[in-house]
This record gives sequence, structure tokens and C-alpha cells, in this order.
Amino acid sequence: MLRTRQLVSRSFSSVAFPPLPSTPTPPFPGEYPSAKVATEYPGPRSVALGKEMESMQQAAAVHFFVDYTASKGNYIVDVDGNRYLDVYGQIASLPIGYNHPKIHAAIQDPKNLAILSQRPCLGILPPADWSNMLETTLGKTQPPGLSEITTLMCGSCANENAFKAVFIWYQTKSRGGKPPSELDLQSCMHNEAPGSPALSILSFQGGFHGRLLGCLSATHSKAIHKVDIPAMDWPVAPFPKLKYPLDAYAAENAKEEARCLDYVESILKLHNVTKNATSEIAGIVVEPIQAEGGDNHASPSFFRQLRKLAQDYEVAFIVDEVQTGGGSTGKFWAHEHWELDNAPDLVSFSKKMQTGGYYAKPDFRPNETYRIFNTWMGDPAKMIQLQAFVDVLQSDNLLENTKLAGDYLHAGLQKLADQYPGILSNVRGVGTYLAIDFPSPELRDLAVNRLRQVGLQSGGCGDRSLRFRPSLIFQPKHALETLELIDHVCNGLLR
Amino acid sequence: MLRTRQLVSRSFSSVAFPPLPSTPTPPFPGEYPSAKVATEYPGPRSVALGKEMESMQQAAAVHFFVDYTASKGNYIVDVDGNRYLDVYGQIASLPIGYNHPKIHAAIQDPKNLAILSQRPCLGILPPADWSNMLETTLGKTQPPGLSEITTLMCGSCANENAFKAVFIWYQTKSRGGKPPSELDLQSCMHNEAPGSPALSILSFQGGFHGRLLGCLSATHSKAIHKVDIPAMDWPVAPFPKLKYPLDAYAAENAKEEARCLDYVESILKLHNVTKNATSEIAGIVVEPIQAEGGDNHASPSFFRQLRKLAQDYEVAFIVDEVQTGGGSTGKFWAHEHWELDNAPDLVSFSKKMQTGGYYAKPDFRPNETYRIFNTWMGDPAKMIQLQAFVDVLQSDNLLENTKLAGDYLHAGLQKLADQYPGILSNVRGVGTYLAIDFPSPELRDLAVNRLRQVGLQSGGCGDRSLRFRPSLIFQPKHALETLELIDHVCNGLLR
Repeated sequence: MLRTRQLVSRSFSSVAFPPLPSTPTPPFPGEYPSAKVATEYPGPRSVALGKEMESMQQAAAVHFFVDYTASKGNYIVDVDGNRYLDVYGQIASLPIGYNHPKIHAAIQDPKNLAILSQRPCLGILPPADWSNMLETTLGKTQPPGLSEITTLMCGSCANENAFKAVFIWYQTKSRGGKPPSELDLQSCMHNEAPGSPALSILSFQGGFHGRLLGCLSATHSKAIHKVDIPAMDWPVAPFPKLKYPLDAYAAENAKEEARCLDYVESILKLHNVTKNATSEIAGIVVEPIQAEGGDNHASPSFFRQLRKLAQDYEVAFIVDEVQTGGGSTGKFWAHEHWELDNAPDLVSFSKKMQTGGYYAKPDFRPNETYRIFNTWMGDPAKMIQLQAFVDVLQSDNLLENTKLAGDYLHAGLQKLADQYPGILSNVRGVGTYLAIDFPSPELRDLAVNRLRQVGLQSGGCGDRSLRFRPSLIFQPKHALETLELIDHVCNGLLR
Repeated sequence: MLRTRQLVSRSFSSVAFPPLPSTPTPPFPGEYPSAKVATEYPGPRSVALGKEMESMQQAAAVHFFVDYTASKGNYIVDVDGNRYLDVYGQIASLPIGYNHPKIHAAIQDPKNLAILSQRPCLGILPPADWSNMLETTLGKTQPPGLSEITTLMCGSCANENAFKAVFIWYQTKSRGGKPPSELDLQSCMHNEAPGSPALSILSFQGGFHGRLLGCLSATHSKAIHKVDIPAMDWPVAPFPKLKYPLDAYAAENAKEEARCLDYVESILKLHNVTKNATSEIAGIVVEPIQAEGGDNHASPSFFRQLRKLAQDYEVAFIVDEVQTGGGSTGKFWAHEHWELDNAPDLVSFSKKMQTGGYYAKPDFRPNETYRIFNTWMGDPAKMIQLQAFVDVLQSDNLLENTKLAGDYLHAGLQKLADQYPGILSNVRGVGTYLAIDFPSPELRDLAVNRLRQVGLQSGGCGDRSLRFRPSLIFQPKHALETLELIDHVCNGLLR
């Protein structure tokens, strides 16, 4: 049944939000004035297309089918003509909105035609301008000290290869820099020690590092992602369960963080000093903000101490910035907020960067070729999009905009939490990398659904959280529209 | 030092090759008449660019830097202006040559601009025409009975997710179709049984299924790919070591295949019947022709019996067609040569298909959502290239062409092996999916290098083999040029 929904406007708002700050970022050319939903959610064409898809692949997770040509800037348009303000950004992977004119221009530039027309094997047959392409994209966003750049296919692939680089580094170090022995080479062909060593990556409860078999062993966000799949026998440490707002619970939170750090140290001792465990730990992997696990934060001090533990126990410190990277925290890399003395050893990325990969310190380049390798080693076609992102980031002051829009959204969400104490809680985050909690998974799912009905495309994380992952072109005015739509839905939930 | 090399021409040839058969495939528009190398290999610009790249990433495996705009059809052009006849095809991943006009047209088609400009999350926000896109590409190349299509990022990702689908299927079957228990869900969060079960995939010595941690445990081609990386304790069976030509050694080869099948059955018994092993086998994975491991063949009868063993022991039969798929054996999928009574349970693909993924029987679709899932689930931008490939495959009779060119090349290689018995041996393969052996790794490497010096871009596999993996637009005339260049180099190796 089709029916036209009343548009949400400021007049519906029960909460008074402050005036909009001005942003240095220009408006997105030709962007829609607001969200607009004219059909049921999901719309009839989406439902019909879902049935078609179901004959070939699972379609039950589909939100709706998208008209990617009509989508523009912060607004995603579905096949039924509804447009949604998108604060989910393709699971945090949309850097500068839909159909940015700079990306269009790059795709249509005749000099990029060849790269868009075939996939080069970058490890053996890179294009002429490959070094230049790296320098002007990933070279510009490089965390200090991490001079090695490895491009890969996606976030899981990035983490898994970062783990491999860590294992190779660890074993090479153990051998005093020598290459593998004959016995190493022979035994590994049968998946046996010493060539296939009992090494592990230490990860955290609630952490998410991807779904391939190696990184899935370091993932502990949701059971349904892991169950029935064999796992490496890798250790897991508790991640701090902090109370929000962080300032209000500083002492309590510090105690919780100390507990987790003690636990990490005890695992490191057990595995690498007394060696009373099935594996030796070669590295620690951590997200700056646990995303999939529910937007769990820890303090810069926690991460500084964790980094120091890795250093003291001579294991690699891997920061997984697949979701946090790319500017949405207000700094390009979330770990920049920590002000580390000693940079991470490896930083993995994907999502907004369009290409997967990792940065590393020079020690993590294997001495031998073909050890970190696959057919394609990334995709220069995605570097074209990344180039546009990096250019616009600078020309349009997107980090500054993200701070402004994020602060505005953050303050507004706190106002809403005050207004709806039975519905919203634990407003948290930095930049536009924000989250709120609902009282239960059911109410969160209902809210996400109702928000789509009024034109807000968002996504859940953890058990009962809603996460905000808009593009970097999300401006204060979009934050206001977001707040008004949430206000409207919360109002309805009360009834 | 720059110097102009004499072009190889038929007058240099010491072997008389038969006249060229005609092919139904039209010539590639504007293709170069032949290879032409005018500088040292690698050329001075490639060497300089390699040094630049080395400051950011390992460049030691680079053959040369490529002018992808100037490359055309079967000829790859380097930054020094040299052009090589390419029989390696971007490690078997180039379906219809460089800069095919049909791919250009698709890339430049305004209706594809949006899909080229942002990466959709296909699992939750597919484009409007996604079902149609699947039907007209992967739907057209679907092996009979395998109605499930899952698109993924690359070959490793395809195999790894195929393994995951097998584990989920196996455990669901063990539970009589019920969902995981509370204990399953809790224990898997700590990487512990029963939620993280001790399941394995049985693979073969010499097999290659990728380099991520799960599929690397099923890979046994070269030690340097595996050493220092922790592995799952998965079993490995011997793969037949056949003598070539296969016809001449039929009885001996049949005995060798029987030995390997007996071994497979004994492992299946040990793991799944007497259960006197550390894991239960959930599936068997095999390449139709072991590629990376050295182009090792087995007979259709071997594969039929292997398939039957999988069926008898109720484990999944996974055929890894990442390299063999896409038509170069003269059939679109190499396993079509086997004439199986019961189709494989899963068939993985990537490379020439441009997108990774796997086909599966309907049983291998998990009941729950988000179990086979990642952010992007493939890339519709690559489906644009795949569409052009599938269309041209049919319109230009590429399978027929591949049989003709392959048979011509095969016969010519045998002539060369007869002419140079001390250098070339074991000519083998089907379609253009061919290989030859050299007496030693050193001589193979020298030959690959010398071939580049005269304009043939090829690649090694195994210890001492050279593999042919041209595009499907490789015609008999290109086969002749290939033979002449090999003849020339073999001539030189004798001196």
C-alpha cells in the first residue's frame, strides 16, 4: 500500500537545538534539501527486487535497493524514489558522499580509462605512475614513522596480511635475522611446527577484525559471526567497559582500564615469559574504538599503556583503523588522539580509503619476495576514488567540518538523551564517530526501522547501540536534520 | 645502455611449424603486429621507477612497469616502449586482452558512472539492477545445479568463504538442522569447542588455494608462502604425480591415481569414522589442474572417484576454479571436462572473472543472515568488466578460438620439445592452459628472463615449469609467434 508520509520539519521537534555553526566546507553541489519518504519502508519495488535476488543469494539482510545514480551527497535514494539522509555511509565506507563531482571527473578522465578497464597485478606489473599514485594518496595520509605501504583487497585481507607480516617479523627476529631453516621449510608444508609455529595474536573481547579464518580468531564481537567456524587457539583479553560520559566517571573508568591492562600483562607473561600456554603471542591487535562490538571507547592513557606493554614484551602493536580511519573522528587516524611516544608498528585500513591495506614500520617488510603477496595486491581503480577523497579532504576542510558537525550532533544527542531518558543513553564518541544506546536490542531495531520510515538511514552495532558513520561532507545542517528525525521517532516510541 | 634488439622473425626459426588454422574470432582491433623489444630488460625507466617504489614497498618481484594505456589485445607495453606478447595474462586474470573496445564502451557508458564512483555494500544496499547484473554475468556461466551465487573480493576470499559455508553446513547437518546452542554461542567467543569446532578441509600436496590464514592451511605449493605463519592442523593428501604425455603412461598413471585415492580414503576414515585424529573433515578442496604447484594434472576418472569419496563420506566437494575457470581450458569451467554424475558442492572463482566468489548448491546457503558477509561483498564495478567478457565470449566464439589456438600451441610445443630434448619436456595441458618443464629451476628462470628479452611475457610455476595463461583472444597466430620466440631462446640456450 502506497501512502505519502508527512515530512518531518522543525515544527515537529519537541527539543530546541542550538543555532547551526558555520562550516568552512562548501555545500554539496545539487544536494537534496532534505530526506523524503513517500512509500512504506521497504518500498514495493525493493520488496519485489529482494524476491528476485533471493533466487540467487540471501537477500534477508538487504535494507533496500538503491538508485545509485539518483543518490547525491548525504542522501541515498532507493528504487521507490524515497531519499534518506545517510548517517551509516555504506557501513562507514563512504568518504565524500554519493556522486561527488570530483570523483565523477576522475572516472571520466580519459587518462584513467586504461586503469578502469583491466586489473593489473600490482606486485609484478604496476602501472607507470604507481609510485606517484601512492605518494599522492596513501603517502599523504601516512602515520609518521610507518613508511611501508601495502595495498590489499579489503579490511579483512588487510588485517590478515598485517598478521602475516607480524608472524614473519617475529620468527625472523627469533632466528636472529636468518632465513628459515630446511626443517622450517619442510615442516610447514605439512602444517607442522617448527615451520608452522604456534604463534598467536592477542585481541580483545568485543573486538572486530574481520571474518576470514585468521582475523575471525581475533574477532569477538558477535557469536553468530564465529560459531561453527574452526578457530586458531588465540588468547583474548577483556576490553574496558567504561561508563559515559567519560568525564563524569573518570576514576571508576581508570580503575576498569587498569584491570584490563593487568589482564593483558598476565596473558603476555603466561604466553611469552613462563610459556605455560599453547602459543606465543607475536602481536596485539586493537581498534581505537570498538565499532561492530558496540562503539566501546577507552582513554588515550589506556592505549598508551597498551602500546608500552607491547613494546616491553617485544610483540607488535597493530592498530586496526579499518572503520576509525579516514577522518570521521576529527583526525585522519583515530590513534592520533592518543599522542603516542612510539608509533604503532602497523596500522590497517580499508572502508573509506576504498582500498584495503596497511602501513608498517620498515622492519615489517619481509626480506624475501612473494611472502606478502596475492594476484592483485589491491586495485588502482580504487586509488582514483581515494585520490579524489584526499584532494577534497584538504580543499574543502573536511576534518574541520567533521569536528564542527560532530560536536553539534554530539551536543544535540545529549539533549535528546536528557529529553528521552527512558529511550536514549550513553551518548559517546568523537567527531561524527558517535553512538547512542537504546534500552534493548528490540527497541534499537525498532528505532532503526522507524528512522528509515521517516528518512534516516542508520545502522546498529553491539547489542543495543546505534552508530553514526556519515561521510565527511556531513555538515551541521545535516546533523540538525538527523537530530530532528531522531526526536520525532523517540516521540513516537513514547506513545 | 640502450640498444635495439633484432626482432625475432620466422627466418630465425629452426623448427617448421604447421600452417595456421583459421579461427572464428575476429582480430583484435588495432592490435600490434608483433612483439618488439628495443631496450635491455628491464628497461631503464622501469629500473628507475622500481627504485622509487622501493622506498614505499617491496619492488623486487616487479617484472617491469606497464603503460596500460598503450597495451592492447595480447600485447603488454612497458614504460620503455617495449611490447611483449603476453601469455601470462596478469597471472591468468586477463580475460579478453588489454583495452578491449567493449570494456572501454562499458566504462564510458554514462549509466555505469554511479557504480564506478562509489562502492556499494552489496549485502545490505545492492543497486537497483543487481539481480539483472548477476543473471547476465555469473548467471550465464553458472555450473548446472549450483544455483547459489556469492560474490566476494578475490580468490583467497572466495575460498575462505567457501570453507566457511562448508563448516556452517557441516555443523548444521550434525545438529539435524537446528541452530547453534547457547553453549556453542558462548564457547566460540573464546575460540573454544564446541562453538569453534575442530573441523578441517582436506587438501592436496602441491595445491594452492590462496594465502589468507585459512586457505593457506590448505595450500601446499611452496614453502616460502607458508613458513613462519601459524596453520590450522589440517590434513593433506598426495596428489598424483603423473607422467606426460598422459596417453603414453596410462597404466602407470592409473596406478598412481589409485594410490592417492586410497590415501584420501584412509584419511577420511581416520578423521571421520574411527575419529582417531585432531579434526573432523568437513570438505575436500581441489584444483582441476594444480597451477601454482607446477601445472599438475590428474585424469577425469581421478576426479570422478574423488567426488564419489566426498559423497560417500558426506563431506563437501569444493572445486577451486580460481585459475582454471573462465574458459582457458576450452570449457568455461575445467571441471566440465570430468563429466561428473553429481556436480561439485561449491565452485570458487576469481581472476578472469574479475570478481571473486563461489557458486554453491542451495544447501550451502546459511539459514541465518550475516554469516557469510563482509562490508562490500564484491564490487559491481568489476561486474561491468565481467559483463563485457561474457558478451564477447559468446559473440566472438572465444571458447572455440581457445581450443584452436591451444591445440596449435600444444602441438608446436611438442615439436619444440622434440627439437630440444635437453631443454624442454613434459608438454601438457588442455586449451591454452598449457605448461612445459625445464631441467632445473635455474634454467627455467633464465629462459623466462631471456623470453622477456625477445618479447614474450610468461611466468613460472612449480619448481621448473613455465605456464601459459593467455587471454581468450589469443589466436593461432599468437601461438605461432610464441613458438618462434621460444624456439629462438632455446636455440640461444644451447650455445
